[in-house]
Amino acid sequence: MPVRVSMLPDAQRPRWSTALTSVEPNSIVLRGYALDELMGRLPFGDAIYLLLTGDLPTPSLSRLVDAMLVSFIDHGVTPPSTLAARHAATTGASVRNAVAAGVVAFGKHYGSDALLCRQRLEEGLDLVSDQRLVQADEIPPPGFGHRTHPNDPRAIRLMQIAHELEADHIYTQFIRALEHALARHPALADHPLPVNVDGAVAAICGDLGLAPEVADTLLLISRIPGLAAHALEEQKRERPMRVIDPHGHDYDGPLGLRLGDRRK
Amino acid sequence: MPVRVSMLPDAQRPRWSTALTSVEPNSIVLRGYALDELMGRLPFGDAIYLLLTGDLPTPSLSRLVDAMLVSFIDHGVTPPSTLAARHAATTGASVRNAVAAGVVAFGKHYGSDALLCRQRLEEGLDLVSDQRLVQADEIPPPGFGHRTHPNDPRAIRLMQIAHELEADHIYTQFIRALEHALARHPALADHPLPVNVDGAVAAICGDLGLAPEVADTLLLISRIPGLAAHALEEQKRERPMRVIDPHGHDYDGPLGLRLGDRRK
Amino acid sequence: MPVRVSMLPDAQRPRWSTALTSVEPNSIVLRGYALDELMGRLPFGDAIYLLLTGDLPTPSLSRLVDAMLVSFIDHGVTPPSTLAARHAATTGASVRNAVAAGVVAFGKHYGSDALLCRQRLEEGLDLVSDQRLVQADEIPPPGFGHRTHPNDPRAIRLMQIAHELEADHIYTQFIRALEHALARHPALADHPLPVNVDGAVAAICGDLGLAPEVADTLLLISRIPGLAAHALEEQKRERPMRVIDPHGHDYDGPLGLRLGDRRK
Amino acid sequence: MPVRVSMLPDAQRPRWSTALTSVEPNSIVLRGYALDELMGRLPFGDAIYLLLTGDLPTPSLSRLVDAMLVSFIDHGVTPPSTLAARHAATTGASVRNAVAAGVVAFGKHYGSDALLCRQRLEEGLDLVSDQRLVQADEIPPPGFGHRTHPNDPRAIRLMQIAHELEADHIYTQFIRALEHALARHPALADHPLPVNVDGAVAAICGDLGLAPEVADTLLLISRIPGLAAHALEEQKRERPMRVIDPHGHDYDGPLGLRLGDRRK
Repeated sequence: MPVRVSMLPDAQRPRWSTALTSVEPNSIVLRGYALDELMGRLPFGDAIYLLLTGDLPTPSLSRLVDAMLVSFIDHGVTPPSTLAARHAATTGASVRNAVAAGVVAFGKHYGSDALLCRQRLEEGLDLVSDQRLVQADEIPPPGFGHRTHPNDPRAIRLMQIAHELEADHIYTQFIRALEHALARHPALADHPLPVNVDGAVAAICGDLGLAPEVADTLLLISRIPGLAAHALEEQKRERPMRVIDPHGHDYDGPLGLRLGDRRK
Repeated sequence: MPVRVSMLPDAQRPRWSTALTSVEPNSIVLRGYALDELMGRLPFGDAIYLLLTGDLPTPSLSRLVDAMLVSFIDHGVTPPSTLAARHAATTGASVRNAVAAGVVAFGKHYGSDALLCRQRLEEGLDLVSDQRLVQADEIPPPGFGHRTHPNDPRAIRLMQIAHELEADHIYTQFIRALEHALARHPALADHPLPVNVDGAVAAICGDLGLAPEVADTLLLISRIPGLAAHALEEQKRERPMRVIDPHGHDYDGPLGLRLGDRRK
Repeated sequence: MPVRVSMLPDAQRPRWSTALTSVEPNSIVLRGYALDELMGRLPFGDAIYLLLTGDLPTPSLSRLVDAMLVSFIDHGVTPPSTLAARHAATTGASVRNAVAAGVVAFGKHYGSDALLCRQRLEEGLDLVSDQRLVQADEIPPPGFGHRTHPNDPRAIRLMQIAHELEADHIYTQFIRALEHALARHPALADHPLPVNVDGAVAAICGDLGLAPEVADTLLLISRIPGLAAHALEEQKRERPMRVIDPHGHDYDGPLGLRLGDRRK
Repeated sequence: MPVRVSMLPDAQRPRWSTALTSVEPNSIVLRGYALDELMGRLPFGDAIYLLLTGDLPTPSLSRLVDAMLVSFIDHGVTPPSTLAARHAATTGASVRNAVAAGVVAFGKHYGSDALLCRQRLEEGLDLVSDQRLVQADEIPPPGFGHRTHPNDPRAIRLMQIAHELEADHIYTQFIRALEHALARHPALADHPLPVNVDGAVAAICGDLGLAPEVADTLLLISRIPGLAAHALEEQKRERPMRVIDPHGHDYDGPLGLRLGDRRK
């Protein structure tokens, strides 16, 4: 006689709710908006923001969120996460598997600095409001310095856009104060550690009032196209099962193109 | 004595190239464009298109690509892939792990219909050009009909946008012809099978000249925000380790909101 | 002109070493032993132990490690991780993808209790050696109680085998002391919380001197066959894309079989 | 008013069954056997076989299955799947995430040859029984030759064990016949392609009557300890975020150890 494994009678099963998307026959409603009405009218970046937060972004916010999404979209072949995706791709695994390999290859040493920096900013702002001293023992602290870029061009641009849009408030000011304090650190006399893209995103998302886990999710989403593009390129340009050397690679695409006045 | 495992001397190691992103100190170049110049100017959807294809989309193409990306962004809690992400989230796994669980939970029965439909369209167009007859034995063929929507509102809207933008050519006409042929199939007298969102994407991407694997990757990217949003909602609204019942759920978000004339 | 992305000249590239497996033409050496000599002589459980620790287990240890590996091999369809694997399988994703979906669906609320319990035992033993009091604020603490089993038969058996093999030392004694202390907790008068399988594994691995991350890896390995078996059963017995109800399932396999004296 | 998304009333929900494991309070039954009775008596390899097939292996079969599981347990640092796991580990991702990265990094060019070879054997045996000629156009066919081993020691040993245990029947004889035919192929005069470990596993599992997907799952399970061991070694021995060079590595563990007469 078969044995019942289930433990709850039907009547006691709790119902549960979602506030993301309603799906009824011939009707899909995303955060209250008919999905087919959004299509062709709402940019993908705005739809991501709407889905994650429940609100349509203002035009300023839309531009800032898009700038953050674009800033992380790819960083060449060297990140371990990208190399994990390439190693999956070279075996003939599907692009989706290569993306999954890349997604699970984010850890506390890579892909977590924006979240860690945000935590420091929260702690630091608490300390400041308590009139206590700030001390930073860890060099470099998350959000400062970059192994390739002495002065991360993405951070410079993000801070500039936030300033133009008057979206730089207490978090942005605080990370600037930390940057100045770090510049006077005796161990860093010859190696300044300016705010990097993780630090800029952490501060700006703090000023935008985005929860830390939502900000972190924006960055995860933004890197998916990069992982996928590397998997596609690997399968299109390279022979299967090659040895992927993390050193011996060149960029052979175009350089020096400009958007011109095509878009503002 | 330790044993050498590596097999190639340094001098024989082949170099390899990437055409996606050039990374030099203080300079990141995406498909030829300085990334920091793109930030704040290029919408995320256009940046995805640029990264995957190497070209900036025209304004019409930009709108069509955004419409496709938005159309797949979420479909509520019932897709197995979304439930896999929720099951990861309820254990306290990270949002990125929940996204990975969702990404690997696409298979030939879910998430592959756009690619399968595209293959049918290619085969069908070859047959037509060879003056041979088309026969469809599989009912429903990929790209037609939907288990929830008798008439998929996303497909209707995508075909309409493609028509407005004069982007509907031979693939779109062919899938329309197949739809008409199916309507006369004796087994489908009472259950018509109109083009669904997978079919619309397959046809439109064919007309846009996008390689099938690039079109498939666009859809993968477009669902990531949905998987992530469900993981965030699961961890924010539900207690850990709950039994996730695929039946007993409601939508409790807003309904009936309109974009109005806020965006065109 | 293409741009060099790599940053280190060949001569400066550091070599690195592995102590796991040497691979030379026609020779594979696992932790010092010729792999082909091990085949047919060494049980898989012993090979796992050898690979993870570098040592062949003694016969007693071999039996205890196998008992731990077997104890976690499957726990029916209800664990969220198993349901994540089933949700992947129902889409037609491969068994390996279903296993990956299951592996990433372990989190701090499921699949981590052995590791958490081990940490508590380490802290507790430190406190005892410092003559300080032990206090457990969290009810239930990791390693005690089970949502299905009032008295986990796997824990009973593991502790019994460890006792028979005289492998129960300070960690095992300490977790027993904690179990006795919990039994006197006023909140638990009617709901005792005996040591569960996670607690038994944590204590026994502590007594065996296995590093916490190695013990945790043993459990990960031991559940892989379960995830794979559910994926195979899903694809063999169920139609694709079914709604997987976490309640409405029965066990319809055999019951009451005995090993008899077939093996000792 | 919230909208109902679920589509089936409770009474219409179909029940479903599993034949793997029955879980009741204080009772876990694996394929009919009380799990706690198996613990300490049944080796892990036998438990894997029981879980996947529903049968306890005979002593001969047990030895053969263990030999196959051990043969794939690790193959050093060079497989792309292992490098994907290492790339995850170097970011500080968890061992389970590194294992997941490795699991999704099996594709049609790596990790699929045993399954492909089995398909060829089935097709070939069908052709033979139909008195038709066999032709192999693909060089090397799956299951023959190895990029490192001119004569794969794992295949030699597996075929030898199968012979000793009188488990080599029609599949094994057929793959030997193919090996002889290949040896006379003009293109292979100086580079013979003997049966490799994938070919040996494919043939032996065919003779054992294991379904192809079950045989494939045995190999997946057998590599998990290898992926995990590399992740543990990476995190223990190397600094985070290092550049993992697939060439510049050595084996620095012991060599030349023997089991001696410790086990038979």
